[in-house]
Amino acid sequence: MVNVNRLIRELDELAAISSADSPAVTRVLFSEEDVRARAWLRQRFEEAGLEVRGDAVGNVFARWLGTDPTRPAVATGSHIDAIPNAGRYDGTVGVLGALEAVRSLGAAGVRPVRSIEIIMFTAEEPTRFGLGCLGSRMLSGSLSAGMAADLRDVGGDSLETLRQSVDCTGSLGDVPLAANAYRAFVELHIEQGPLLERQGLDIGAVEKIAAPAAFRVHLTGESGHAGAVLMPDRHDAGLAAAEVALAVERAVLATGCPDTVGTTGVFRIESGAINSVPGRATLEIDLRDTAVESRDQAEVGIRNAITEITRRRGVEATIDVINADPPATCDPMWVEKILAAASARGFGAQRMISRAYHDTLFMAQICPSAMIFIPCRNGWSHRPDEFASAEAIGRGVEVLADVLADLAAD
Amino acid sequence: MVNVNRLIRELDELAAISSADSPAVTRVLFSEEDVRARAWLRQRFEEAGLEVRGDAVGNVFARWLGTDPTRPAVATGSHIDAIPNAGRYDGTVGVLGALEAVRSLGAAGVRPVRSIEIIMFTAEEPTRFGLGCLGSRMLSGSLSAGMAADLRDVGGDSLETLRQSVDCTGSLGDVPLAANAYRAFVELHIEQGPLLERQGLDIGAVEKIAAPAAFRVHLTGESGHAGAVLMPDRHDAGLAAAEVALAVERAVLATGCPDTVGTTGVFRIESGAINSVPGRATLEIDLRDTAVESRDQAEVGIRNAITEITRRRGVEATIDVINADPPATCDPMWVEKILAAASARGFGAQRMISRAYHDTLFMAQICPSAMIFIPCRNGWSHRPDEFASAEAIGRGVEVLADVLADLAAD
Repeated sequence: MVNVNRLIRELDELAAISSADSPAVTRVLFSEEDVRARAWLRQRFEEAGLEVRGDAVGNVFARWLGTDPTRPAVATGSHIDAIPNAGRYDGTVGVLGALEAVRSLGAAGVRPVRSIEIIMFTAEEPTRFGLGCLGSRMLSGSLSAGMAADLRDVGGDSLETLRQSVDCTGSLGDVPLAANAYRAFVELHIEQGPLLERQGLDIGAVEKIAAPAAFRVHLTGESGHAGAVLMPDRHDAGLAAAEVALAVERAVLATGCPDTVGTTGVFRIESGAINSVPGRATLEIDLRDTAVESRDQAEVGIRNAITEITRRRGVEATIDVINADPPATCDPMWVEKILAAASARGFGAQRMISRAYHDTLFMAQICPSAMIFIPCRNGWSHRPDEFASAEAIGRGVEVLADVLADLAAD
Repeated sequence: MVNVNRLIRELDELAAISSADSPAVTRVLFSEEDVRARAWLRQRFEEAGLEVRGDAVGNVFARWLGTDPTRPAVATGSHIDAIPNAGRYDGTVGVLGALEAVRSLGAAGVRPVRSIEIIMFTAEEPTRFGLGCLGSRMLSGSLSAGMAADLRDVGGDSLETLRQSVDCTGSLGDVPLAANAYRAFVELHIEQGPLLERQGLDIGAVEKIAAPAAFRVHLTGESGHAGAVLMPDRHDAGLAAAEVALAVERAVLATGCPDTVGTTGVFRIESGAINSVPGRATLEIDLRDTAVESRDQAEVGIRNAITEITRRRGVEATIDVINADPPATCDPMWVEKILAAASARGFGAQRMISRAYHDTLFMAQICPSAMIFIPCRNGWSHRPDEFASAEAIGRGVEVLADVLADLAAD
């Protein structure tokens, strides 16, 4: 039996390890809070009798040994980092929910043949290095050790330095998983969208994950005194950036594709003083789609707009691609297993698409993968009032436990 | 004789007390660098034999006693704080130049009847509290002690707390100057515009200072996950802010007045993560003009645009007026004295308008005031490559010394 009360209590305990005031949660990779949360989580894993180990980039693995440890294990898990001012369910439900699933299977006397491994992926959120799914990206071999080591945060600190300062030892070159390390990967996650709630359903079996692409745009104009430089003499990088952000919206809408979304989530200007004409601006743009074609069409529209805007305003632009990943397709058999497990328990379920970015995107590159979605209130996520009910979480964990037991049985 | 080499050396020494790497200068009110710069400056004043005192808000006064200390003194001075990533001449030339003027008069055997007082005004730049000319604003009685005490910086710290932490003792209520404290005030400053340089002139005698107004706009939309919230469901505060910034430019150009300028120098969004739809944005807008009418016209245009933008995007706006000051007119007789002193030394000079904000704006409210401008390269200011030649600075100090000696002679 899934102990939902214990799980909710653990979600609350983890939420309290935050650099933002409750109910907001902020846990940035390798911050003091992230390090404390990792220690807290390892303790929970150890109390449950799992074998815990970490890798050089900070992924944490907790293994429940099967009766035949030589067979490829069944993996599950998610992340516990949180963007600034976020909520308490994104990612954490997939990590602590997996722990609860394993505990409930053990309590019910299940003895799996294959080992079941819970993975806490390091930095699914791109907050620190501007690159999402850092842990799963490296596990899948999509990001080389050299590229990873050189990643730098806003303060100029490299991943290589930071990871060592928090005792992530070993070589980054050893992070990628061996072929056939896992038989399967299943991730439990809140939907982060309103569809399940609107339709009164309990479980979503994800078939596809939208293809994300991220860009960083640096704009360099000419700074000056806000009083002394007359309007025709200006090369205002802040206004150029404002036009680019609006061009992102326009280019996305121009695709005519309802699934295409584009966001300018980072907008920084320098010097940032009220009486100074901005001389520099940095934007970070996130584009995603279930189809690469319409995403590419939006990107072309944005690039054309940047050319026109910068030429007209006498501003220089550089565009860096942070990442441009292919969409992921979940394993059809595992999707079926999720739907069957939900149906057996009398839960309402449907197939669906994930528009949000998940570690499954990368795990799907190295083993058959699937995702279980549960509803969250109003589809809100990445905000302090993100909420999933105990009931919804409990149902998700039950389905996850059923699917893990099934996958690990032979 | 003005010792220009000594003055340039002191400007360089002061520039080295900065939280930005050379040649950039950053000295924010009550930062560690500001406190060190104040101590360094007091030492220079004391070495010159001046009587030094400070007030509760951090203004520093250095007095050269006249033969009749009962008569209202003649005041001069400027500021030494610097916005992020600024240059080394804005403000500092008026403080260290005044010191050099006083030293050169003393060396030449001048014994003034009236005392000459150099003022280092606290926080001419609005960086910390969003309000410019903090020191002169309080000295002139334009900002009450209660309003000042409650000012808060981005970190939530109040002026009252911060000033005490850096040993600015006494009561803010004692800061305003008595009526007739000074016979006159004269400020030496780089032009921060290109006119003197373009015309090959040495000295500008400022007749009017443009009327500045500053606004803070808070926009509240709805945050959410950049992947999960579809475009039609968004209330993106960042995009609303981008439109407002562009509306500022449009409204200013629509006045048809070449002197009207408007700048969005602060543009902050939350949460500020690449994968999050911005839920909040803060803009700080600076509008200035030599005529209140066209400034008001631009303000109306901006307010109308904000109403339209926020209604269309489903975003809430609040607009706070940070300040809206009347333009200042310099004393015609003092303007004449500056032109006469320049002419007597064979310097090219002209009357002009200051579009930048200066402490003279507030000093003019309580005593006859004037400003001496000197050329700076390309009109650049508020940037690391701000530059005024030793020759240009030397000429400005000579004219300042002549005018101070004249005003203090009876």
